[in-house]
Amino acid sequence: MAASEHAKMLRKYAELIVRVGLNLQKGQRLIITNSSTRGVNLHNAALVSAITRVAYEAGASFVDVIWNDEDSIRTRLEHATVNSAAEYATWHIRALLDMVERGGAMLTIRSNNPDLLKGLDQEIVGAWQHAHLEHFDPVLKSVTSNMINWCVVAAAGPGWASKVFPDLSTARAVAKLWRTIFRITRLDQPDAVAAWKVHIAALRKRAGYLNARKYARLRYKGPGTDLTIGLPEGHRWLSAGEKTQGGIDFTANLPTEEVFTLPHRLETEGTVRATLPLVYGGQRIEDFTVRFEHGRVVDVGARRGEALLRKLTTADDGASFLGEVALVPENSPIARLKTLFYDTLIDENAASHLALGRGYRTCMDGAEKISDAEFRARGGNTSLGHEDFMIGSKRLDIDGILGNGHQEPVMRGGEWAFGT
Amino acid sequence: MAASEHAKMLRKYAELIVRVGLNLQKGQRLIITNSSTRGVNLHNAALVSAITRVAYEAGASFVDVIWNDEDSIRTRLEHATVNSAAEYATWHIRALLDMVERGGAMLTIRSNNPDLLKGLDQEIVGAWQHAHLEHFDPVLKSVTSNMINWCVVAAAGPGWASKVFPDLSTARAVAKLWRTIFRITRLDQPDAVAAWKVHIAALRKRAGYLNARKYARLRYKGPGTDLTIGLPEGHRWLSAGEKTQGGIDFTANLPTEEVFTLPHRLETEGTVRATLPLVYGGQRIEDFTVRFEHGRVVDVGARRGEALLRKLTTADDGASFLGEVALVPENSPIARLKTLFYDTLIDENAASHLALGRGYRTCMDGAEKISDAEFRARGGNTSLGHEDFMIGSKRLDIDGILGNGHQEPVMRGGEWAFGT
Repeated sequence: MAASEHAKMLRKYAELIVRVGLNLQKGQRLIITNSSTRGVNLHNAALVSAITRVAYEAGASFVDVIWNDEDSIRTRLEHATVNSAAEYATWHIRALLDMVERGGAMLTIRSNNPDLLKGLDQEIVGAWQHAHLEHFDPVLKSVTSNMINWCVVAAAGPGWASKVFPDLSTARAVAKLWRTIFRITRLDQPDAVAAWKVHIAALRKRAGYLNARKYARLRYKGPGTDLTIGLPEGHRWLSAGEKTQGGIDFTANLPTEEVFTLPHRLETEGTVRATLPLVYGGQRIEDFTVRFEHGRVVDVGARRGEALLRKLTTADDGASFLGEVALVPENSPIARLKTLFYDTLIDENAASHLALGRGYRTCMDGAEKISDAEFRARGGNTSLGHEDFMIGSKRLDIDGILGNGHQEPVMRGGEWAFGT
Repeated sequence: MAASEHAKMLRKYAELIVRVGLNLQKGQRLIITNSSTRGVNLHNAALVSAITRVAYEAGASFVDVIWNDEDSIRTRLEHATVNSAAEYATWHIRALLDMVERGGAMLTIRSNNPDLLKGLDQEIVGAWQHAHLEHFDPVLKSVTSNMINWCVVAAAGPGWASKVFPDLSTARAVAKLWRTIFRITRLDQPDAVAAWKVHIAALRKRAGYLNARKYARLRYKGPGTDLTIGLPEGHRWLSAGEKTQGGIDFTANLPTEEVFTLPHRLETEGTVRATLPLVYGGQRIEDFTVRFEHGRVVDVGARRGEALLRKLTTADDGASFLGEVALVPENSPIARLKTLFYDTLIDENAASHLALGRGYRTCMDGAEKISDAEFRARGGNTSLGHEDFMIGSKRLDIDGILGNGHQEPVMRGGEWAFGT
């Protein structure tokens, strides 16, 4: 793609992010960061610049950016002791919380090198990750309860692109990853904003149907999978097109293909087999199964990374319970690419999935402001982490079970099994 | 210069900065920023990466970097109203104050495009600048009273380099500016750290001589200049090689050629003519004179930029009094380059100079912790700003006048006139 053509696409992407993703309001502040690397990667400067310009044109009162150099994280952890890895600068947390208090909007641009932490001392990496999760927790709570309009988007970067397309030169890999991002965010369509409105309406109809049915349980059947998941009283199916507590419509993820809700943390029974690898702390967990009793993980097995999977499910108490149930049809544009992106933002839109750890309060009626203890008592799960893993395939069937025991198809062969 | 050679020079520069500039201690934190653009410029990533690595090797417990994209400042001010230009995110101020409280070290990397704000609405630029100076004031106070070891260094960047060397392509201008920076920081010498030790010892001898003389006044004579500056009781001449309140030796500026002290704010009389242009808010003030009575600026004249000069001297009350007197010989390596760098860090080391605005408390015995009112009562000046202007030339003579009226030569024809 020629440089000027790329700049045009970045401008279109910026417009989609500001208008559909954030729905930034006139006079609102905007803060741009990358919540996992503690700042936007320096190599995303051209996209940040385009977004900054579009945001000011849309009437932003102030666009603030927290930057970070991903490689400096590795430099640090190469030299760190366990104690120094846990040292933490809290200013960026306060920057984000300030923005929440002022009713500003927040954008996360993901462009992470999946191999950034490869080969480093796991104890040091663990200390660093734990310090971040602990400090970031109040931000995550505010954001996931939709106190503000927020959005997570993807941007190509050299480390990430080379991991996804290892046979290409870095420059070609980056260009191909950009083309892919533009396609899965529907920027290849003449009017992407209009295309998103149609897409969001379709997803909301699916969520609306499931909300009307009020299933008590979901039953999953597929190769290696025989699982029942209870859904708590007052669970809400959500999709693209959320609303802040103050009433601003926004789309929290670009791309997004999922319809998702909250499982009851104590009511998962049976075994599920993952259909895609899970990347955790830069390492792959492959061909794995997880067995649940009364909601809790009681056994795991994996062809590769089993010890890591065990560690993931015991990171804290909530890490051994489910926090999310999401449905994605096999014909979604991302599923059809048959590419592992090593980034949950995209990979979770390629297949139906579950997540261990934190549940979203927005997925339960009236749960935005209740205490953690009450959230758990009502079936919600709390944890510092939230780890998605993919279980969808063309051979997965899902049934919804009503309170009276009546069973009806939700998905068949990985596709939606009901009309809207 | 080949890429690998440049990387080697950056590594040497990083070592000089960490060892001689900051003298970073084992277990100390380090924060890297650019205090005027509110974060290091993204184009300085390679230098920051080298410094980060050297700092960790030297035993830093944590290296934190605040980044900013200089161009985003312009994008903002192009779209801002006066009110929105004054909006300010205080998180980076708190990040710096936190670092001071924890006894960390602070590095500022200057690489500013002198034309960044060119052509913008002056009222909007003024509102933005004022908000920054006001919020940054507590940081500046902590730093200039040497609560921590700190250092300001230069790094080439495209906007800056093209301004200094307008006849070269951007790439060549950047390469030439880097070569120049390496030369004036003595990195062309086989052992730059050793060369700096010799240079610092020589500067300290000059300062020691002047401190022993305890002049009551300085008398400046040159073309267009006939000026007397009173020096307050307890003034201290300083140079490279300062000490934190806790006793860590450091060098606050790289490069540095000056020996400087505090004038008495009410005892400047006469007229001084500048010998180099002054760049203020992206605009040049040329061929100008300033007349003082009882310390206060009572008249200014300039061939170009006179209104701006008037604005500068009336920005706040302290802006119309002197805050610094600095002596630089005409044979300094920077003076010999005969180049206007449009950046005070370098330009102030090309010629003897004065500054309007804030005085340095470290230049007065026991003034580190006294109140602003007491500092002023003892002859110190307070202001949000500190603007240096160059008055040195081969035709400038300076005498020191003792309390008993005895007069002796300090500089003749722009060179030191005393042995040490």
